[in-house]
Amino acid sequence: MRVGIFGASGYVGGELLRLLLAHPKVEVSAATSNTYANEYVFRVHPNLKGRTTLKFIKSNPSKVADLCDVLFIATPHGVSSTFMPHLMEVGLRVIDVSADFRLKNPEDYVKWYGWHHKSPELLKKAVYGLPELHREEIRRAQLVAVPGCMATAGILALAPIVKSGKIDINRIILDFKVGSSGAGAKPSLSTHHSEHFGVIRPYKPVGHRHTAEIEQELSLLCGEKVKVSMSAHAVNVVRGILSTCHTFLKEPITPVEVWRIYREFYSNEPFIRFIRDVKGIYRYPDPKIVVGSNYCDIGFEIDDHTDRLVILSAIDNLMKGAAGTAVQDMNIMCGWDESEGLRYLALHPV
Amino acid sequence: MRVGIFGASGYVGGELLRLLLAHPKVEVSAATSNTYANEYVFRVHPNLKGRTTLKFIKSNPSKVADLCDVLFIATPHGVSSTFMPHLMEVGLRVIDVSADFRLKNPEDYVKWYGWHHKSPELLKKAVYGLPELHREEIRRAQLVAVPGCMATAGILALAPIVKSGKIDINRIILDFKVGSSGAGAKPSLSTHHSEHFGVIRPYKPVGHRHTAEIEQELSLLCGEKVKVSMSAHAVNVVRGILSTCHTFLKEPITPVEVWRIYREFYSNEPFIRFIRDVKGIYRYPDPKIVVGSNYCDIGFEIDDHTDRLVILSAIDNLMKGAAGTAVQDMNIMCGWDESEGLRYLALHPV
Amino acid sequence: MRVGIFGASGYVGGELLRLLLAHPKVEVSAATSNTYANEYVFRVHPNLKGRTTLKFIKSNPSKVADLCDVLFIATPHGVSSTFMPHLMEVGLRVIDVSADFRLKNPEDYVKWYGWHHKSPELLKKAVYGLPELHREEIRRAQLVAVPGCMATAGILALAPIVKSGKIDINRIILDFKVGSSGAGAKPSLSTHHSEHFGVIRPYKPVGHRHTAEIEQELSLLCGEKVKVSMSAHAVNVVRGILSTCHTFLKEPITPVEVWRIYREFYSNEPFIRFIRDVKGIYRYPDPKIVVGSNYCDIGFEIDDHTDRLVILSAIDNLMKGAAGTAVQDMNIMCGWDESEGLRYLALHPV
Amino acid sequence: MRVGIFGASGYVGGELLRLLLAHPKVEVSAATSNTYANEYVFRVHPNLKGRTTLKFIKSNPSKVADLCDVLFIATPHGVSSTFMPHLMEVGLRVIDVSADFRLKNPEDYVKWYGWHHKSPELLKKAVYGLPELHREEIRRAQLVAVPGCMATAGILALAPIVKSGKIDINRIILDFKVGSSGAGAKPSLSTHHSEHFGVIRPYKPVGHRHTAEIEQELSLLCGEKVKVSMSAHAVNVVRGILSTCHTFLKEPITPVEVWRIYREFYSNEPFIRFIRDVKGIYRYPDPKIVVGSNYCDIGFEIDDHTDRLVILSAIDNLMKGAAGTAVQDMNIMCGWDESEGLRYLALHPV
Repeated sequence: MRVGIFGASGYVGGELLRLLLAHPKVEVSAATSNTYANEYVFRVHPNLKGRTTLKFIKSNPSKVADLCDVLFIATPHGVSSTFMPHLMEVGLRVIDVSADFRLKNPEDYVKWYGWHHKSPELLKKAVYGLPELHREEIRRAQLVAVPGCMATAGILALAPIVKSGKIDINRIILDFKVGSSGAGAKPSLSTHHSEHFGVIRPYKPVGHRHTAEIEQELSLLCGEKVKVSMSAHAVNVVRGILSTCHTFLKEPITPVEVWRIYREFYSNEPFIRFIRDVKGIYRYPDPKIVVGSNYCDIGFEIDDHTDRLVILSAIDNLMKGAAGTAVQDMNIMCGWDESEGLRYLALHPV
Repeated sequence: MRVGIFGASGYVGGELLRLLLAHPKVEVSAATSNTYANEYVFRVHPNLKGRTTLKFIKSNPSKVADLCDVLFIATPHGVSSTFMPHLMEVGLRVIDVSADFRLKNPEDYVKWYGWHHKSPELLKKAVYGLPELHREEIRRAQLVAVPGCMATAGILALAPIVKSGKIDINRIILDFKVGSSGAGAKPSLSTHHSEHFGVIRPYKPVGHRHTAEIEQELSLLCGEKVKVSMSAHAVNVVRGILSTCHTFLKEPITPVEVWRIYREFYSNEPFIRFIRDVKGIYRYPDPKIVVGSNYCDIGFEIDDHTDRLVILSAIDNLMKGAAGTAVQDMNIMCGWDESEGLRYLALHPV
Repeated sequence: MRVGIFGASGYVGGELLRLLLAHPKVEVSAATSNTYANEYVFRVHPNLKGRTTLKFIKSNPSKVADLCDVLFIATPHGVSSTFMPHLMEVGLRVIDVSADFRLKNPEDYVKWYGWHHKSPELLKKAVYGLPELHREEIRRAQLVAVPGCMATAGILALAPIVKSGKIDINRIILDFKVGSSGAGAKPSLSTHHSEHFGVIRPYKPVGHRHTAEIEQELSLLCGEKVKVSMSAHAVNVVRGILSTCHTFLKEPITPVEVWRIYREFYSNEPFIRFIRDVKGIYRYPDPKIVVGSNYCDIGFEIDDHTDRLVILSAIDNLMKGAAGTAVQDMNIMCGWDESEGLRYLALHPV
Repeated sequence: MRVGIFGASGYVGGELLRLLLAHPKVEVSAATSNTYANEYVFRVHPNLKGRTTLKFIKSNPSKVADLCDVLFIATPHGVSSTFMPHLMEVGLRVIDVSADFRLKNPEDYVKWYGWHHKSPELLKKAVYGLPELHREEIRRAQLVAVPGCMATAGILALAPIVKSGKIDINRIILDFKVGSSGAGAKPSLSTHHSEHFGVIRPYKPVGHRHTAEIEQELSLLCGEKVKVSMSAHAVNVVRGILSTCHTFLKEPITPVEVWRIYREFYSNEPFIRFIRDVKGIYRYPDPKIVVGSNYCDIGFEIDDHTDRLVILSAIDNLMKGAAGTAVQDMNIMCGWDESEGLRYLALHPV
């Protein structure tokens, strides 16, 4: 099967190339970049050197549509909604890693992104591409919107307990710690090594856009309007997101019950691991242990002192938080083994 | 004036040595360490090489008491309470950086530390050494208990708003991100470079001991029992603590009002800086900007979406979080300029 | 085919487990560790969680020999030479990642390692397991000694030019920069995160043991006694080795000639990449671009000012520098595709 | 005394501000920046917040000359030589941290910098501002050229042994490892955190401009033309330079003799420390131990195997490698205690 990547020079584009070039069922037939058109992809993604002699081509949606059966889109937010109707018309299957089709309510784009959606009629058609919540819809979808990186970590951490009805859905705090690759490949003063090395920098204490996705999906799960309080911090790593979810229990719960709720919700999920040990140094999720893999590691602790349930999740923002889930979505859409091309484990130590 | 450091081979001990050797009003007359007795202090604290030819002596409380007028104690928790009565009797002024005299209620030592206090009668005599809250008592104290590092960051962030009565004191979440030096100088697998480099590791999601101090001090401020939900994470730096305090407003508030509450509370404080900018890359507190200094940087943001007030504070855990405050306490006790020996600024970039 | 790992709880052992568990042609039938016997391997190597329920068994050479067809040994230096004769007698094929069978001259063990070799008669039988130099011998070997990590980087950088006769073989300087994982999994003060983070620490400016291997192999290549000057430095990463080889040209040479020498020497090598670009930011080898892969990246620059040829090589010390080459050796010994189980690319960025 | 900083928004400018604002003998009367004119200096150098309300002014040489008695220049290379004649005429004392007046031979600017010097007549007048070599000339100088950061580390490491005549002056290899702050404050792809974190990147294996300074000063010392082979690598820290100097002995030498040569050469130097210990973890110079201080730490090791003498030196590139030496030069020029304003020690750990 021929797959294309629209916007392949960024970090998510590079990660898609890395995964798809090694995927046994597909052939990468197009990788676009206006900036680097006609350059070898390995000049931008040096890890690919020796594996491919592919070159970037210009980012022309119509032309690219002719070159592939499935198209991955990894453009900045606000781009794909301008030409998506055309791609839909020509019958292409599209997996969009940008935010353009994640939200169902067009108003939310005005509120959280500050622009009016160009193709609001397609929002209903698009499927929110989190396999753990929407596997069946993904299977039949023509257009899949891959969740945001922090949204993925947050939703996967919270979905089971929100659905269970055990917590106060008006006092959910998500405190994220994220690596620098989430800021993208474009240099700026704030990501200059001398300025960013060693930071513990609150970069979005309030108002983060992923709030909208998280609330949309959690509300859907419990049938009530969920509101979450989200804060994001940059820390001194390149890859990885740790999500610390502070929730408050309606009534006391035992660890065994929490276990049961999570194990039932995620039974047979290929990319969910539960991390909770009473000895050793790997007692809770830590992005260090998932980098390069497609896992979402989940753990928790109960705080009797304040009736708090702390749920922790760790992902690689470019894998389970973007390209990994995108490929998982493709595998589902094509009826392949969901883990195809995604079996790589993290390195340890690294 | 002669000052001694009891337990001078750890990281806080080394930081006290660095500060006191450069302090114009004191002379370091004793630095104890059983492990390194008779070794030059610069063999353990290599940054001091060229500045001092001091050697460690054995940790004998009585002998050390003879050698100094003020004694700093930087031993592990549970040690100083065994010999403190003797030091009090001989009239020594003591600044204890360990946890042994921070809590007023002896029961709290059983609950949070797991041991019965050896000198409970001294708990009332001891002053909680946070200058911003207890300056007058510190001035007259014989025994000062320097606050815990995270407690310092958390209390300074929350004190003004808790006192103002504007927030729900039952839903205060403190999410800490801390550097590895807080774990002390003793090697272990969890702090082995290969295992600790690049972590975003939840190491105490619930049940952290500093909870007790924070609640004690905040309750005192507002006259009601405050309960806080605290979680601590290790990140990939050596020094620094960022405290993200998620609080919920009883009713809407403007940024100007929050400013007013904080500026009034901390007017003329030499080591409190307010960090809040709408442009540039230094908009919020970040430990990177305070490392090596005695500052506590404080900032905030209001989240209209969930009536949340996020307060952020950043300190150097070994400075304002330990040795810096200890020296500030000494300056107050001795009637000196409170900033004496503490005027050093952070490096930038570093 | 059944493979065992003797000494599987260290970092090289963990890397072998990661590679072999995913290798399509083998089954891991034994992983030994005296310290962790009866524990799940994922408790020590947390990245393996979800992939295996293997447990460590005791390190008994005879028993392990019964359990497998090929045995990987990843014990500390000086261990395997005590029981290797037994393994050879029972016909096991052994790939030893320790230093015990790398050197041909028993005297060299006295000189560089400080002990007398327990099985000197086997030194001739053993093959130095660097595929790029000894592929044919490896194919037929019963005992393969995997090169040291720095030796691998140094030899691969220098072999072509030393063989060419173009440089002064008495003035070869190898300046290594290495990650902390090379120091192993055992905590110590020097690798404590607070002490090791941010270092640029010369840890072996002279007298490094890998000198012996490098000289042995380079001398073999050019038929003369080569002497090298080696220095090793620890830097602030976990994985990776950069080798900067300063050599001096007998007479001027052009870049094209150097290219020719290297391309001819390494034609068709699956894990050698040449990195030399005149634009962009990936102009020379950098371990950052190979971590997790089995590549050795090689580049060079000519310094007309002092008739110097600088050759640069970058490897992942746990992959091409240890476990990766070990698996490559196994593939050769078994007649499989040499890249089997080793096709993974580095992550970028990471 | 009034001091000005011309080009105060870069990292060296910021470091000069930090030092001079705390210097007891001077008052900062001007800090220029065209980009940030009229902005508070603490917006660019956030560590200065709370210490100063100084604002940047436009970079007009004539105006600035009126505002100060001593002027520090921290502009990019090639700028100060265009207006230096004017500053000399009006009698200003100038300390130039840029490269414009370091080299004595105008031809060297063509060869190493690629431009013709605008004020070649001033090159003789300028003093190379390394106090350890030119203290007396600095005392009487009107124009001091502060050495390059790597040049400082290299020259200080090599000066005593080169002068002693014990080594081969045609085979001196300087292998530098440097932090990212040396690349300056301007963001670029190569210093983007995601691209620069974790590098061990050879960025100038041959042809580095500091070669010219090092050769000029070492030749002066030994009366013969010295040629050095220099390579520079970027590593994963912000501040610090380690210089590994590989030299070859004409005849065997003992450690005691090397000690004697170095101690005699640097007797009474306030900022040279010798680091060489046989136990502990601080056996050799490491930038980690000097960051923030003005020290140059020097150590060595003899390699009998190849008659090599390895000399190691470590500095903070923004301190002893730039602003620290500049202030030391000012202290000498003004007849003050040479350590004034420079007594700060490094932090440990950090």
